[in-house]
Amino acid sequence: MPTAIPTDKAYAWEQDAHDNLAPLRGEFVVDDPNLIYLDGNSLGRLCLRTANRTREVVEREWGQRLIRAWNEGWFDLPARIGAKIAQLIGAGAEEVVVADSTSVSLFKLAVAALDVQANRPTILTDDLNFPSDLYVLQGAADHLGNAQQVRILPSSDGIHGPSDALMAAIDENTALVALSLTTFKSAFTYDMAAITRKAHEHGALVLWDLSHAAGVLSLDLNAAGADLAVGCTYKYLNGGPGAPAFLFVRRGLQGKLRNPIPGWFGQHKPFDFDLVYRPAIGIGRFLTGTPPILSLAAMEPGIDLLLEARIDAVRAKSLQQTEYLISLWEQILAPLGFTLNSPRNGALRGSHVSLGHEDGLRIDRALIEEMQVLPDFRYPDNIRLGIAPLYTSFADIWEAVDRLRLVVTQRLFEKYPAKPPAVT
Amino acid sequence: MPTAIPTDKAYAWEQDAHDNLAPLRGEFVVDDPNLIYLDGNSLGRLCLRTANRTREVVEREWGQRLIRAWNEGWFDLPARIGAKIAQLIGAGAEEVVVADSTSVSLFKLAVAALDVQANRPTILTDDLNFPSDLYVLQGAADHLGNAQQVRILPSSDGIHGPSDALMAAIDENTALVALSLTTFKSAFTYDMAAITRKAHEHGALVLWDLSHAAGVLSLDLNAAGADLAVGCTYKYLNGGPGAPAFLFVRRGLQGKLRNPIPGWFGQHKPFDFDLVYRPAIGIGRFLTGTPPILSLAAMEPGIDLLLEARIDAVRAKSLQQTEYLISLWEQILAPLGFTLNSPRNGALRGSHVSLGHEDGLRIDRALIEEMQVLPDFRYPDNIRLGIAPLYTSFADIWEAVDRLRLVVTQRLFEKYPAKPPAVT
Repeated sequence: MPTAIPTDKAYAWEQDAHDNLAPLRGEFVVDDPNLIYLDGNSLGRLCLRTANRTREVVEREWGQRLIRAWNEGWFDLPARIGAKIAQLIGAGAEEVVVADSTSVSLFKLAVAALDVQANRPTILTDDLNFPSDLYVLQGAADHLGNAQQVRILPSSDGIHGPSDALMAAIDENTALVALSLTTFKSAFTYDMAAITRKAHEHGALVLWDLSHAAGVLSLDLNAAGADLAVGCTYKYLNGGPGAPAFLFVRRGLQGKLRNPIPGWFGQHKPFDFDLVYRPAIGIGRFLTGTPPILSLAAMEPGIDLLLEARIDAVRAKSLQQTEYLISLWEQILAPLGFTLNSPRNGALRGSHVSLGHEDGLRIDRALIEEMQVLPDFRYPDNIRLGIAPLYTSFADIWEAVDRLRLVVTQRLFEKYPAKPPAVT
Repeated sequence: MPTAIPTDKAYAWEQDAHDNLAPLRGEFVVDDPNLIYLDGNSLGRLCLRTANRTREVVEREWGQRLIRAWNEGWFDLPARIGAKIAQLIGAGAEEVVVADSTSVSLFKLAVAALDVQANRPTILTDDLNFPSDLYVLQGAADHLGNAQQVRILPSSDGIHGPSDALMAAIDENTALVALSLTTFKSAFTYDMAAITRKAHEHGALVLWDLSHAAGVLSLDLNAAGADLAVGCTYKYLNGGPGAPAFLFVRRGLQGKLRNPIPGWFGQHKPFDFDLVYRPAIGIGRFLTGTPPILSLAAMEPGIDLLLEARIDAVRAKSLQQTEYLISLWEQILAPLGFTLNSPRNGALRGSHVSLGHEDGLRIDRALIEEMQVLPDFRYPDNIRLGIAPLYTSFADIWEAVDRLRLVVTQRLFEKYPAKPPAVT
């Protein structure tokens, strides 16, 4: 439990000075030294290499090589980048591809799973799951017409996922367990191996959304026996706004599952133009249409950087930094009325820390407008502070806490109405 | 019927000199004066403005504005670009959005349509349709479990769509007619208004794939009473490799159809994070996940250019150029064994011309490797020459024909095996 960590800025500087990953910040565009960016879990920063790669793909590959560029690398991008992401999540190179949005990818895998579990009536999830995932699961269930029902287990405290209730609910009626491994509000993180084991004992499949976990947790999908997963690439993978998602299908399942949106990129031989669909062997069958190449290509340098940093070191720094933030919260912000809306236990926590406050929304506004801190806000009262260890410094964290303190002690939030901004 | 058009290069130059659209070629990256690019119907060229726009969206918006850029324009991109595409296809501004791949978009609209036509057993299409569309239609039919069947009408000559058979087949059993307006091999183009009228008389819906038509035909979806459409943006719209597709839903249908992949971008108020999906009012409900912003943003300048050129002028030039090409074929290439695999009648033809030859594949290879001409090839024997009037010159067409002539008269193709390249 993090206590007695010094609260002076010199301590933060000292931590940065001893941080082996600190030099990686220089790999990113950080143009405004006064801006504290704690929203890398919504949109990761731009790598310098990515800016170069994007120019190359647009100006040289598209502009000069034109259609030839498809054979000179573009066709391979979904699988090549998938294989790199696989290394970050403990999967095999031929178990991951990148193509569509997270929601579309989730839909494909959910329908594919429900299809082979048609005799089982229940899809288990929780109310901490990202709402879009719930919509997609409902859409998948509706469409198959198998009378499968989505059951949303309630979390008891809004912070921790209902692990015990979930374990108890998994039985022979369970078609699919579909959860965010790290939940978007509190960063509560499930035990992948335990849930997978329990699900498999009862013949259920598990589909993980790794959006808030990939690139910042030490994941080992293969060791956990994971079946299916999807995840964002624009958060900790720094892939760029709306960059396509990855999807993972365990090798042994690939041949058993059907892509519900069969398209030419998942066809065995797309350029034969057969009128009848024959799925590709392997993970490629889960591709559908032509993927957005600019967004795909822009994703690769950020992933390379994570591989160079090594994910275990990233997770270690993330834990150290969230502990540091929680310690500062405890000593400085808790007395000002802030609550900790994330798990205190590091083993149960991803890489963001949510702080609640009865004036949370107004404080969030003031923090952005007056204080040059960019957190995220999630209703009803979560000021979500995202730690991206590749570029977040200990000094950033100290500054964010200090500016939060100023907003409250100087009542800077009072000029903002207690009403949501258009979008945060 | 195009005859007696002079076959000398001076005539081509003269046509270019009198072409009001000729200056637009200067808006594109054309770095290799010897390269004849006739594959703009697979991948449109890069506009200079697009290169600038891409730098801006990556380096300034993502790099510097970070998450704030979502509120400074990114959220509006699917609808804003959709509204511009609407102007190119004769649709209302609030009837078009851009988001997912063509195949995923087609899936969404096909399932949505079949869902409301569940009591009708037949989906009508043809064997000239893009195979991926057939896979998607089959996928859509399979998933609903309504026992709806895809019926693929055969074309009689492989060039012209089976219009008469189609008109005769549309009846009270028809749930959906789904066709490529302009077919990918021959460029045969259906009569949108007539088919829509017939379908509506019998209570059927029509879903058009406009991939080879948008940006080069004068379309008027509203005048034709069109129900549903999707289309590529990386062909004549010059949106960039794999740029997301647009989808169109007639205003009166929007409230009646359900997006089968409900996600947060189609939610009424996405940032309320309700656990229950409530679709947005209007076309926005057909969005699903976070769209790939780099690929979306890169699409806009090419569309702007088409709007500036005016689509009627683009179509007029396209017709003039395909007629010119056919006239050169008739006088120069037909005697060398080339067949015309596209409609002779301009009213039935899109903007590419396919030429067949018994040594087609080898000729295609030689054309690319020896002659610096980039056409496309589609089995079994279609050398597909795409005319993109914004940058294709009459001199390009003359050169392509002349180099085709040289490949055959000098037997330059003989060193290439009669075996497919990996991908064309």
